[in-house]
Amino acid sequence: MIRSDGRAPDQLREVKITLDYIKHAEGSCLIEFGDTKVICTASVEEKVPPFLRGTGQGWITAEYAMLPRATAQRMVREAARGKLTGRTQEIQRLIGRSLRSAVDLTALGEVTIWIDCDVIQADGGTRTASITGAFVALYRALEKMEKLEAVRSFLAAVSVGIVDGTVLLDLNYEEDSMAEVDMNVVMNEKGEFAEVQGSAEGRPFTRDELDRMLNLASKGIMELISKQKEVLKR
Amino acid sequence: MIRSDGRAPDQLREVKITLDYIKHAEGSCLIEFGDTKVICTASVEEKVPPFLRGTGQGWITAEYAMLPRATAQRMVREAARGKLTGRTQEIQRLIGRSLRSAVDLTALGEVTIWIDCDVIQADGGTRTASITGAFVALYRALEKMEKLEAVRSFLAAVSVGIVDGTVLLDLNYEEDSMAEVDMNVVMNEKGEFAEVQGSAEGRPFTRDELDRMLNLASKGIMELISKQKEVLKR
Amino acid sequence: MIRSDGRAPDQLREVKITLDYIKHAEGSCLIEFGDTKVICTASVEEKVPPFLRGTGQGWITAEYAMLPRATAQRMVREAARGKLTGRTQEIQRLIGRSLRSAVDLTALGEVTIWIDCDVIQADGGTRTASITGAFVALYRALEKMEKLEAVRSFLAAVSVGIVDGTVLLDLNYEEDSMAEVDMNVVMNEKGEFAEVQGSAEGRPFTRDELDRMLNLASKGIMELISKQKEVLKR
Amino acid sequence: MIRSDGRAPDQLREVKITLDYIKHAEGSCLIEFGDTKVICTASVEEKVPPFLRGTGQGWITAEYAMLPRATAQRMVREAARGKLTGRTQEIQRLIGRSLRSAVDLTALGEVTIWIDCDVIQADGGTRTASITGAFVALYRALEKMEKLEAVRSFLAAVSVGIVDGTVLLDLNYEEDSMAEVDMNVVMNEKGEFAEVQGSAEGRPFTRDELDRMLNLASKGIMELISKQKEVLKR
Amino acid sequence: MIRSDGRAPDQLREVKITLDYIKHAEGSCLIEFGDTKVICTASVEEKVPPFLRGTGQGWITAEYAMLPRATAQRMVREAARGKLTGRTQEIQRLIGRSLRSAVDLTALGEVTIWIDCDVIQADGGTRTASITGAFVALYRALEKMEKLEAVRSFLAAVSVGIVDGTVLLDLNYEEDSMAEVDMNVVMNEKGEFAEVQGSAEGRPFTRDELDRMLNLASKGIMELISKQKEVLKR
Amino acid sequence: MIRSDGRAPDQLREVKITLDYIKHAEGSCLIEFGDTKVICTASVEEKVPPFLRGTGQGWITAEYAMLPRATAQRMVREAARGKLTGRTQEIQRLIGRSLRSAVDLTALGEVTIWIDCDVIQADGGTRTASITGAFVALYRALEKMEKLEAVRSFLAAVSVGIVDGTVLLDLNYEEDSMAEVDMNVVMNEKGEFAEVQGSAEGRPFTRDELDRMLNLASKGIMELISKQKEVLKR
Repeated sequence: MIRSDGRAPDQLREVKITLDYIKHAEGSCLIEFGDTKVICTASVEEKVPPFLRGTGQGWITAEYAMLPRATAQRMVREAARGKLTGRTQEIQRLIGRSLRSAVDLTALGEVTIWIDCDVIQADGGTRTASITGAFVALYRALEKMEKLEAVRSFLAAVSVGIVDGTVLLDLNYEEDSMAEVDMNVVMNEKGEFAEVQGSAEGRPFTRDELDRMLNLASKGIMELISKQKEVLKR
Repeated sequence: MIRSDGRAPDQLREVKITLDYIKHAEGSCLIEFGDTKVICTASVEEKVPPFLRGTGQGWITAEYAMLPRATAQRMVREAARGKLTGRTQEIQRLIGRSLRSAVDLTALGEVTIWIDCDVIQADGGTRTASITGAFVALYRALEKMEKLEAVRSFLAAVSVGIVDGTVLLDLNYEEDSMAEVDMNVVMNEKGEFAEVQGSAEGRPFTRDELDRMLNLASKGIMELISKQKEVLKR
Repeated sequence: MIRSDGRAPDQLREVKITLDYIKHAEGSCLIEFGDTKVICTASVEEKVPPFLRGTGQGWITAEYAMLPRATAQRMVREAARGKLTGRTQEIQRLIGRSLRSAVDLTALGEVTIWIDCDVIQADGGTRTASITGAFVALYRALEKMEKLEAVRSFLAAVSVGIVDGTVLLDLNYEEDSMAEVDMNVVMNEKGEFAEVQGSAEGRPFTRDELDRMLNLASKGIMELISKQKEVLKR
Repeated sequence: MIRSDGRAPDQLREVKITLDYIKHAEGSCLIEFGDTKVICTASVEEKVPPFLRGTGQGWITAEYAMLPRATAQRMVREAARGKLTGRTQEIQRLIGRSLRSAVDLTALGEVTIWIDCDVIQADGGTRTASITGAFVALYRALEKMEKLEAVRSFLAAVSVGIVDGTVLLDLNYEEDSMAEVDMNVVMNEKGEFAEVQGSAEGRPFTRDELDRMLNLASKGIMELISKQKEVLKR
Repeated sequence: MIRSDGRAPDQLREVKITLDYIKHAEGSCLIEFGDTKVICTASVEEKVPPFLRGTGQGWITAEYAMLPRATAQRMVREAARGKLTGRTQEIQRLIGRSLRSAVDLTALGEVTIWIDCDVIQADGGTRTASITGAFVALYRALEKMEKLEAVRSFLAAVSVGIVDGTVLLDLNYEEDSMAEVDMNVVMNEKGEFAEVQGSAEGRPFTRDELDRMLNLASKGIMELISKQKEVLKR
Repeated sequence: MIRSDGRAPDQLREVKITLDYIKHAEGSCLIEFGDTKVICTASVEEKVPPFLRGTGQGWITAEYAMLPRATAQRMVREAARGKLTGRTQEIQRLIGRSLRSAVDLTALGEVTIWIDCDVIQADGGTRTASITGAFVALYRALEKMEKLEAVRSFLAAVSVGIVDGTVLLDLNYEEDSMAEVDMNVVMNEKGEFAEVQGSAEGRPFTRDELDRMLNLASKGIMELISKQKEVLKR
């Protein structure tokens, strides 16, 4: 199988991370997985949600959106519709949960870190690019807060899928729309899972296929974490 | 490890399915996983969403809700809040996607089948009970429509998790709140996956733990499918 | 005039009340007026609305909803529409006002009792079944709170109407849709009115017709109150 | 009992109706019941709701609102809150149902008449003043449409209540807030009821009290209908 | 050019201000610019928005709405739509900003004055009539609060525009719909601007045209301020 | 007066326009006025709003938003609040109206061009940068549609204001927050106005001050139009 952009099945797209992309934010970057581009910021607020008040523990929460023309067809703005789609809510819950798994919240103190992932151009894999970039923005904010000891581990995410029977790493939009199975994996630098989400799109998948997808994801995530470390000079 | 309700780690709670529970619906049941009780209905509408018009293909979509006092603390109604929570949207997308994977939509003709899962009492595992019961309601509706040939396979769902280092099947609410890892698996009668969703709650999980959870889920789902077949007399 | 279900004009449908139907709620029942089935719960919250703070007085408020497939045609969920219909709001105001008339709120202390009436199957008379069942759930909750002295009187509700010129008690859905006049009456065990709501549906009604409807309602309510007392062992 | 404004118990407040108050509307008036002032308009639209399309029948629907400073304390605008209160919805349903009972909808043709009742100053009885004024606006619009044959009967509304044990006609705000029982009656010129809505506010009420309230309402409504006829020169 | 209502190009419509039109409000008037009629009220609330708490300074904010049948075609109520249109928000921000420019907010103490402008009949110039009337209502409220020293200057507003190449003062609806350029000017009694808002409707406008419009607006505003003073007996 | 960034009073910030910034859009650019950065896209849709159907005429409409961390303090997303602020609505109406004034809509044919202006970093002047960049995106889309003949004139916008008595061009955020008067001007290449919006922030302004602000705006806009032409190679 030849991929439309000439990559090998186990090859990531070109990854670029521009650190400190937004001047106001405590941490920020522009992350690019090929033509997918996401602005990620981390903002620190000196208060926590009601259920944490008085516990001394902090919180990390995430919001995700796409610019209306990030996609081939212009989409209606969620602000104009007056509500978030289910897809958006699902993605922002995933980003928040993933990042919380990589941080010791009790070491933060009573602060909330707001992660914002805004997709300015989309070509597949926006949620995995968001998690990978959001970790960088978060790390940067913790660095400024002098709280790097709260970081338990580096963390990144990648998509894998089955297209025409072949297991592929880091699907672009075209591949994603043809995929029979679609999986997103979030993993830390020790190779442990924070999230595994696999969905049959066209047909159910076997245990063997699941195993092969997890292997490929694992390889891709290790490369992404190297990239994060290089940019953050760790 | 002794489970609070005395079950073995690989044991389901008592499962009860009351067929044709709601007289108006084309298909319906009351499903009980221990103290978790869900009313599932399937309603047939003679039209499809815009993106399917003229294709001859049908659609299956799902809605999920809890009665305000299904839980230990009364919750605010989503209708009173004026919008759905992210959790609700995530669950209804999961139910819809799962059921669609078990049906040949092109064999339905241009109809939409609306699945409604309303939790009247909650004790953990409401989304897996919903999928398992929704399949029964859907099957029943297809039977009345004389479209059983559209069913590709039976399908059920179960939760697994890790509590205090032990892998457990079909967590109740108390176990779920203590779980370090939480996973929902949707599988067909051939043992193929429709959905795999695992989340680190307290700590990331290893590949070996993932494998043990999938094995346990597989065992539980086969028992649930036997139960479905018995009730539907297949 | 022969009623479709063979009842005499002054006869109630079969009434069933299953006490303590929902395990989490302080008070609950499943009430059935024939094929109309409503889950009623009473939930106690240790605070009152702003206008009562510091008065030592309690409050009772009600919410009402129908499952989407409680009816012959599936209805759109109010949570999905993002707002309550006028009909729903009217009914929940009626339930709340009726129950408050039967209780000495100053004897409750500063607590709010939330009444939830969720119709799982509808066949006419859902609001009167809700009030009658809600009183049972409320009574049960007051019993657990050891506040039965706050109950001023038993209370129940029934519909009456004029179909084809005949005054009928406890209309089912089919009768209700043909009714020329439709009336809901809420009354206590002393025969005093809490609410009287009569509407011309097809034609205005005379004073004499009003009197005959009130007489019939009075008879039905006394029977419903006997049923409540039997279930609650009073 | 001496009423705060010196009226006899069976006496209406001064009623003023200014016909054709709004130049754009097909029918309109400003109605005043003492200090309660409501602008009522009737607007004709050449289409009907979906359930009436193709039936040849028309429809009448009503909307009701108060200016924010119609009341002693400024109220939050419903447009700013983003939704209608239950009270507003209840009142607009009541106005619409009442007017429909006075008109032969099949004689209208496929048009919708929108009734708008906007309270510019409130002093009790806003819903009964609205119905009484709305009938005048509606009549005027039918006159312009040359459809007066659709009017079955004149129609007006008044409130009655029990204050300190005395049955009073047409309660002002101060009386209304002290009332033990509150009732709104809508009646046609033949003395037939379109609506009867009585609520125990402080205590339940007896059948004898109900009868006395209905008698008083009947007297008041006949006086209001005379006033309507005088203004409309019938 | 002959104006449809016979006015000279630099002539205002007949202006009427009925003081104290709403009995409950601290300040109120009904203002009429020809057939445009607006009820303006000022309501005093003993608290300020969060950003002013503890500063000793007050606030003035405005809301604006039209009755549904204020216009030739009935409009959908914003309360029924569940949100404000952009036009409404723009107008209420303009009214609030204009009035704040005429008052020394630090002299008010920590109170909010809510201005409500409700258009009961519209014939062009509703925003300028609203500002002119709102100033009167505000002045009246400050008089009752014994805070007239907070008034820096009288303030009024008028529209000007270019129709068929002629610069006109105080456009009515018909003129407004034909205008090539439309401008609203808010000015104090010293001839200083609070707001200047000019928009090309059909074609851009030159600096010379802008100057001529400002001259005309200035003339009209001085006449409106005389009218305000006469009514307020200053 | 020395400006914080060392500019002369009549000097623009550095302006950068990156053409074709978003690959999916028919026209797009990233525009920078100093640290203010806005992504502008133009999207062509082959239909028009209802009021234009069948007229052969096209439409241009605009939407505007800020990323939550475009500002020094993170703002709540409008999509999360469920509605647009008044400020946002005002700005998007301004952008749409301005662009429509520069295009012959009858030459477009029945298409709608959606303009999206998304501020990724804000430092004052976001609405004027949006209009200036949106014109570039629009021009580019018309070029691809081969409809450049619909362009009547180039168009740009700039802010002017009075700070400490000095009239300044193109205010940054710090200057904007101290400004006594704030004005936005939209002008075409012939020096004609599309929009003039001046507001007294701290004090009213005189006719002479207005004149000086308009002169300065005129100078700035001519420079911006040169920049647009250079980038578009006209």
